[in-house]
Amino acid sequence: MRFDEAYSGKVFIASRPDWEDAEAILYGMPMDWTVSYRPGSRFGPARIREVSIGLEEYSPYLDRELEDVRFFDAGDIPLPFGNPQRSLDMIEEFVDSILEKGKFPLGMGGEHLVSWPVIKAMYKKYPDLAIIHMDAHTDLRVDYEGEPLSHSTPIRKAAELIGPENVFSFGIRSGMKEEFEWAKENGMHISKFEVLEPLRQILPKLARRPVYVTIDIDVLDPAHAPGTGTVDAGGITSKELLASIHEIARSDVKVAGADLVEVAPVYDHSEQTANTASKLIREMLLGWVK
Amino acid sequence: MRFDEAYSGKVFIASRPDWEDAEAILYGMPMDWTVSYRPGSRFGPARIREVSIGLEEYSPYLDRELEDVRFFDAGDIPLPFGNPQRSLDMIEEFVDSILEKGKFPLGMGGEHLVSWPVIKAMYKKYPDLAIIHMDAHTDLRVDYEGEPLSHSTPIRKAAELIGPENVFSFGIRSGMKEEFEWAKENGMHISKFEVLEPLRQILPKLARRPVYVTIDIDVLDPAHAPGTGTVDAGGITSKELLASIHEIARSDVKVAGADLVEVAPVYDHSEQTANTASKLIREMLLGWVK
Amino acid sequence: MRFDEAYSGKVFIASRPDWEDAEAILYGMPMDWTVSYRPGSRFGPARIREVSIGLEEYSPYLDRELEDVRFFDAGDIPLPFGNPQRSLDMIEEFVDSILEKGKFPLGMGGEHLVSWPVIKAMYKKYPDLAIIHMDAHTDLRVDYEGEPLSHSTPIRKAAELIGPENVFSFGIRSGMKEEFEWAKENGMHISKFEVLEPLRQILPKLARRPVYVTIDIDVLDPAHAPGTGTVDAGGITSKELLASIHEIARSDVKVAGADLVEVAPVYDHSEQTANTASKLIREMLLGWVK
Amino acid sequence: MRFDEAYSGKVFIASRPDWEDAEAILYGMPMDWTVSYRPGSRFGPARIREVSIGLEEYSPYLDRELEDVRFFDAGDIPLPFGNPQRSLDMIEEFVDSILEKGKFPLGMGGEHLVSWPVIKAMYKKYPDLAIIHMDAHTDLRVDYEGEPLSHSTPIRKAAELIGPENVFSFGIRSGMKEEFEWAKENGMHISKFEVLEPLRQILPKLARRPVYVTIDIDVLDPAHAPGTGTVDAGGITSKELLASIHEIARSDVKVAGADLVEVAPVYDHSEQTANTASKLIREMLLGWVK
Amino acid sequence: MRFDEAYSGKVFIASRPDWEDAEAILYGMPMDWTVSYRPGSRFGPARIREVSIGLEEYSPYLDRELEDVRFFDAGDIPLPFGNPQRSLDMIEEFVDSILEKGKFPLGMGGEHLVSWPVIKAMYKKYPDLAIIHMDAHTDLRVDYEGEPLSHSTPIRKAAELIGPENVFSFGIRSGMKEEFEWAKENGMHISKFEVLEPLRQILPKLARRPVYVTIDIDVLDPAHAPGTGTVDAGGITSKELLASIHEIARSDVKVAGADLVEVAPVYDHSEQTANTASKLIREMLLGWVK
Amino acid sequence: MRFDEAYSGKVFIASRPDWEDAEAILYGMPMDWTVSYRPGSRFGPARIREVSIGLEEYSPYLDRELEDVRFFDAGDIPLPFGNPQRSLDMIEEFVDSILEKGKFPLGMGGEHLVSWPVIKAMYKKYPDLAIIHMDAHTDLRVDYEGEPLSHSTPIRKAAELIGPENVFSFGIRSGMKEEFEWAKENGMHISKFEVLEPLRQILPKLARRPVYVTIDIDVLDPAHAPGTGTVDAGGITSKELLASIHEIARSDVKVAGADLVEVAPVYDHSEQTANTASKLIREMLLGWVK
Repeated sequence: MRFDEAYSGKVFIASRPDWEDAEAILYGMPMDWTVSYRPGSRFGPARIREVSIGLEEYSPYLDRELEDVRFFDAGDIPLPFGNPQRSLDMIEEFVDSILEKGKFPLGMGGEHLVSWPVIKAMYKKYPDLAIIHMDAHTDLRVDYEGEPLSHSTPIRKAAELIGPENVFSFGIRSGMKEEFEWAKENGMHISKFEVLEPLRQILPKLARRPVYVTIDIDVLDPAHAPGTGTVDAGGITSKELLASIHEIARSDVKVAGADLVEVAPVYDHSEQTANTASKLIREMLLGWVK
Repeated sequence: MRFDEAYSGKVFIASRPDWEDAEAILYGMPMDWTVSYRPGSRFGPARIREVSIGLEEYSPYLDRELEDVRFFDAGDIPLPFGNPQRSLDMIEEFVDSILEKGKFPLGMGGEHLVSWPVIKAMYKKYPDLAIIHMDAHTDLRVDYEGEPLSHSTPIRKAAELIGPENVFSFGIRSGMKEEFEWAKENGMHISKFEVLEPLRQILPKLARRPVYVTIDIDVLDPAHAPGTGTVDAGGITSKELLASIHEIARSDVKVAGADLVEVAPVYDHSEQTANTASKLIREMLLGWVK
Repeated sequence: MRFDEAYSGKVFIASRPDWEDAEAILYGMPMDWTVSYRPGSRFGPARIREVSIGLEEYSPYLDRELEDVRFFDAGDIPLPFGNPQRSLDMIEEFVDSILEKGKFPLGMGGEHLVSWPVIKAMYKKYPDLAIIHMDAHTDLRVDYEGEPLSHSTPIRKAAELIGPENVFSFGIRSGMKEEFEWAKENGMHISKFEVLEPLRQILPKLARRPVYVTIDIDVLDPAHAPGTGTVDAGGITSKELLASIHEIARSDVKVAGADLVEVAPVYDHSEQTANTASKLIREMLLGWVK
Repeated sequence: MRFDEAYSGKVFIASRPDWEDAEAILYGMPMDWTVSYRPGSRFGPARIREVSIGLEEYSPYLDRELEDVRFFDAGDIPLPFGNPQRSLDMIEEFVDSILEKGKFPLGMGGEHLVSWPVIKAMYKKYPDLAIIHMDAHTDLRVDYEGEPLSHSTPIRKAAELIGPENVFSFGIRSGMKEEFEWAKENGMHISKFEVLEPLRQILPKLARRPVYVTIDIDVLDPAHAPGTGTVDAGGITSKELLASIHEIARSDVKVAGADLVEVAPVYDHSEQTANTASKLIREMLLGWVK
Repeated sequence: MRFDEAYSGKVFIASRPDWEDAEAILYGMPMDWTVSYRPGSRFGPARIREVSIGLEEYSPYLDRELEDVRFFDAGDIPLPFGNPQRSLDMIEEFVDSILEKGKFPLGMGGEHLVSWPVIKAMYKKYPDLAIIHMDAHTDLRVDYEGEPLSHSTPIRKAAELIGPENVFSFGIRSGMKEEFEWAKENGMHISKFEVLEPLRQILPKLARRPVYVTIDIDVLDPAHAPGTGTVDAGGITSKELLASIHEIARSDVKVAGADLVEVAPVYDHSEQTANTASKLIREMLLGWVK
Repeated sequence: MRFDEAYSGKVFIASRPDWEDAEAILYGMPMDWTVSYRPGSRFGPARIREVSIGLEEYSPYLDRELEDVRFFDAGDIPLPFGNPQRSLDMIEEFVDSILEKGKFPLGMGGEHLVSWPVIKAMYKKYPDLAIIHMDAHTDLRVDYEGEPLSHSTPIRKAAELIGPENVFSFGIRSGMKEEFEWAKENGMHISKFEVLEPLRQILPKLARRPVYVTIDIDVLDPAHAPGTGTVDAGGITSKELLASIHEIARSDVKVAGADLVEVAPVYDHSEQTANTASKLIREMLLGWVK
């Protein structure tokens, strides 16, 4: 092999070389500056790409190969360190440009606050948008110790934008009492502790609606995702999370965009979290990009 | 904020500033000098406190908040390194003083031998005491290679003190043949491998009795608690252990004291074990201190 | 104790001092030079021995003690670094010498390619040999990017040698589409994702046949075995793998040899993978060497 | 020991129980939200305290004991995550209150930007303030990719406030060309690569002046301080840094306040960086608080 | 920023987007299959690239910026796992194509054996080639336990190709007695233990000759490079290695190509070794590509 | 290779298979139960043996090979966990038996208290014994918080046994004020901070005397030995420690026995400390066993 034929640059396995003919755009949102506990998710997207080389391109769950999905890995958005507002604006602009071209946005975080501008962009295009949210945490705070831009607030902001009745949370096992009460009083769905079973009951209600799916990796038990900012015991297994992705894939829901957030590699020397995240990304691409 | 209003010193979240009006006393027993395999649990209590900042104060399992439980974190007992006998004496004296004030003792280990002096103190106050013991190991040895003060012996000592018929072990998956035989011959209950289901059957028999609950974190599978001295495959999940705590909370048993032992942070770079332990401590406080 | 009575050298707990009266021979195959992702399994056998000191010699699952099984830990075969062909030849010769003496070979890897020469040796002695294979990966490639000697090929080679209808794979969740198709077209059994339930159905069909059992530690979920080369989310628990070993032990299958491969200690700072592997080795000895 | 005599809360060894009679106040500034590379220094102060238990209270370098210095560990300032401006305001207010009481402020970072509000507070009290700055990096940027509040800017801000001719940097081995040029053009002292020798030459010029000393732990070679955000090869040894602290202690300079920043524990599994930092804090207390 | 303007793929900082106008080509040789101790250097080049983001582009040592050197990062050569001969052939062909275009090859290993095909390619173009070799190990074996293709042999092969009198080794502190004797008997230069001082004496003798410089990162003391396969105490500091690179840069030697090998990230949780390697690569580019 | 020719058991490289013709006995003292800070040195000897495979058998410093020294690795003494007194008695008996056979004892710790019984045994045989002690810590306490058997006391005990004027400490940089004063008042030599230069001055005074050399690995700077219980910044380099060993080897001192203690592998993920210790053991064997 000659050097001038060499492949340069690390992307997710099986990414197309150009964006033009891609149906889906994979991108990173390397931001972690509002987290209240352990930072480090800014390095999540890069590590997920790096370890994707350990994956097969074929899914025996879905009997489909990555070459059947045309996607382009656009790299990480160069977000300004320590400036939440400007970071969110840049993400919204970035996703606007994806949607404008009619492509499927698949984001990798970064802290969960990055989902907020994505949802704003999605909602502009899809006024009947619903959100499926898998997470250990409610993320329904109005602010965190006075800060309205915090990783504890994105689902609250989203619920207030698109209507709480259009947000469906699963796997929740941590939050303030007030957050659970606000959800209840405002008609927002929260399934505590479990994901797969309640999801099976909700999915038919969302049939044919455009849905944005946001997955915080900490919905997994710490045993399955030690590499994240805020681990919380009592979560689901990676087997259950894979089954939940497949359940959505086989439903009549029309997934219009998605993200996977909060992978923080430094807390996981074995890199199992990044490896698991890369498999989840593969299954999301194979199952949801039609 | 002025410096002279600053909060000084690291305690478990939501600890009261003074012990006087506390119902429960949380304390550490930083001893690991008799362990036969990997030491390090002396640093368990300090790390559990440190990571408690990542917890919410509300439990969606029990619908109760830490501010509803008045507890005081009394710090670690300053045990003398390498002297088991004097360490055990200090622990007993410490717990005596808690019980004397009518408060609930909640201890954090340290190796499992620390439970022995606590049980002695409890038994002096509660002559009808029963013990619920969750562990991977029987801990029923008479001695360990000749040493009667060993982390392999506390349950044997306890059983001989309060009567083997008053000791109920759950989740056991490791021990010498002689230990299992001794339990059987002496009418001591051992549920091998499982915790939640057999516990549901035993709890009604203990209704209204004072019970001391001692949990060795290694009852969890190594996937859920890698940060402990002696990991042993085939354990229960953190979800099952949480459910077991809640099962006791909802039963008619009168929990009079408890401990959580054998967290050894150095073997768990992700700190999931300490984080899980801090959540277990929160649930024990919320569920058992009434 | 005098120094000239001292025990010298680290072996698996309860190994006999001499090979002559042993029924089973435990040995290491420290090779990892053809792996496509993360190397390091060459250090697996040594670490499994080292941590075996943390085990009890008694199994409460099988009610049997290691002193009831006469086995000898023969150490690691000194394989030549970077030379796959010569390594495989040395392994085959080594196992030939074990079988010649009528002893049970129990191997520890090393990468999965080491199973190939063992199976060749077994097949020479047992022409009606069947293979039970537990793994996350099919390992059915003809070659890996042109290399026929690769950790992705051993089961394909074995299937071609003894007939695909005599190979039974369990727990498979990763592979190329072509591999799954080849198995289907050639009558080879593959149970996707699950091990215990399908094993229960297959075992009666293998009654009284000599069987070689090869276990890739990555059949476990990464939560249960982070210390391996290629982790893949969605695997089974260590509880299920232990139950599968016991299921075989209680069946009418005649286990004639076995191995446990792909433990790579450097990716698991907690050493839970090596500890789990040492327990699995104990159960394989206690359950399969009769 | 009785529980109600127990010491509660983790502070730096030998801290006085009350602030009133203390000459010096030790405090943490747990902020890392503007760092451009690896975050995590928010956990520096807590870990430095925790490991201080491994220190002796006596310095054989200075022949002085911690009991000879009356200091109070005031804990960490509770800074708002992700809001740099408000964090800096809180730090300034906190240090104002220390100076108002006539006490010596000794801060622990956190990222280097935390030194900026401290210097502002110091300058209000000491109009003839000089700064001694030990660091691998110039920290002289006007902004970082547009952000004026960045960990790359504090020395620039300080130099513009108190005059570049009053700032003396040592050990610098990384920066933009423009930063070195700005320093040169504006009469600011930069000693590249070395600390001890150039410090010996500068100290007499600062005799009897009030000096604030700010030490970025990354002035040490990565071998001596792997646990920091931005490691940079070619630094000084801990022996040289200790000698530099002692050189200042023995000079006629009047140290009026100091800080040690950028300890990020998660990147240093051995905890040598936190241990080294705790020893540096001890020597700073013993050598500079007179 | 729009997604279709996004930068995709991870390269060394300041790499040009195209190879055509580059003077130097940076490339990775991700091979580690012949190492005799700890593997893992296959991941060295990728990690060096990833952490280069933490570097400044300016060198205060050489007063030069990366934008002054036109280089292109060509990525990693896709070498076949476990096949040393084919890997070496691919490397030689790759470097041939770089030299054919008149560009400077700067390689990143990978194990040290990768230098052998590079030197073959260099020698074809530069018949008067000399080699400067910095390493802890002689690497002068004829074979390693029978294998002529081993990471212990590249300098022997090189010496036999270009003549031992043209090879100059520095920093050597480990090898077999026979290796040191062979060097002595054949007129090959070996400076034991030290690099900088002996280099200063040798460089004038090499003035105006084309030189290939091969640096094994383990010439550094383990304190400065823990992340390598075979650490060996008593090495030089990163400060001395930087000074040695600068000494060559300022000499009359004509560096015609170079490599830096044996970075194995998994053994260095702090990533100091990869960070140091990325700084060394920057200095090699700035100092040697004229 | 046949299995019945296989080498079984892990020993230090080049150990003789039998003790009879050995001049020196290498042995482990796996005790860490009296340490006041971080335990884990019980695993030091086993890890030093394991990594010795990465060493060459030849020393270019001393131009001597391990095959020229006849030594036998006797394994670890099976010390009773948590019982300091009985452990010390076993060590003394073990070393008595070595000395009785006229062999050179070379011990590996374990915590430093293990040197105390060895010195007792040595003194019985050599009434004119002197001690060379390299350490970061004085180890001159009478007791540690009341415990006379503590890792802080062995040199005090030794000094009281053989006379303080026969004890020579080097590299000391940590201790209580009282310890330094006691040494001074009683004529015991302490070289603070440095080892090599003061050693050169002391060695002639010890010419022809039998000397026991005890090296605490923490005499090295934490950069060179992170894997130890109590790291303390400002230590010497491994290069200086090697030179000190060689200085003794070339002197007229008659080394009669030695040890290397306090290697605690779990704090050093890179294993550089164990690797360095194995090289030190090699140099001690080659330099001191004549």
